[in-house]
Amino acid sequence: MAEKTKGKADENTIFVGSKPPMSYVLAVVTQFNTGGSDEVVIKARGRAISRAVDTAEIVRNRFVTDAEIKDIKTSTESLTNEEGRTSNVSSIEICLTTTKKSEKKKSK
Amino acid sequence: MAEKTKGKADENTIFVGSKPPMSYVLAVVTQFNTGGSDEVVIKARGRAISRAVDTAEIVRNRFVTDAEIKDIKTSTESLTNEEGRTSNVSSIEICLTTTKKSEKKKSK
Repeated sequence: MAEKTKGKADENTIFVGSKPPMSYVLAVVTQFNTGGSDEVVIKARGRAISRAVDTAEIVRNRFVTDAEIKDIKTSTESLTNEEGRTSNVSSIEICLTTTKKSEKKKSK
Repeated sequence: MAEKTKGKADENTIFVGSKPPMSYVLAVVTQFNTGGSDEVVIKARGRAISRAVDTAEIVRNRFVTDAEIKDIKTSTESLTNEEGRTSNVSSIEICLTTTKKSEKKKSK
């Protein structure tokens, strides 16, 4: 639950965690089809980063073939654990867009 | 060995595998300092993708602070295993550049 939606602002954002990639693929495809958005952001941290890339690639190759990777950003986040130690974790943001939908909008 | 250099064309490319991130960080920093190139490409496949992002982030935050991520590309590669089955693996290419060196070159 906490992995997927965090309020209105992050409506188009899918947080990738430790579930199998296909659950996130489903979430992204659903967002494109029912969310009415032509842009979906896939976010992940640490080891889930490779799963986020898998998700984006599966969506693009198999389900939403007109989707394109608009932008990929990486950053470092500082996390403090229970013992008070801080550790740095890399994170990724993959922005997927479909060109079709925006073309449809233009033609209206 | 096979992870790091594959001929002249891939001289500026660091292949990230299963070693600790710091070994790849060292390789990237060495490439920037002695390789005479202001562009280094970090490549990884599958689970090593998150390690590649870690490598890029550590280089950028700690060692080559003027380095910037110029471009990140993802793709899918089809691999055939010993049994003849094909499986798809995601891959990433992170292109790091330093602005300083190219400025130095211009001023000469």
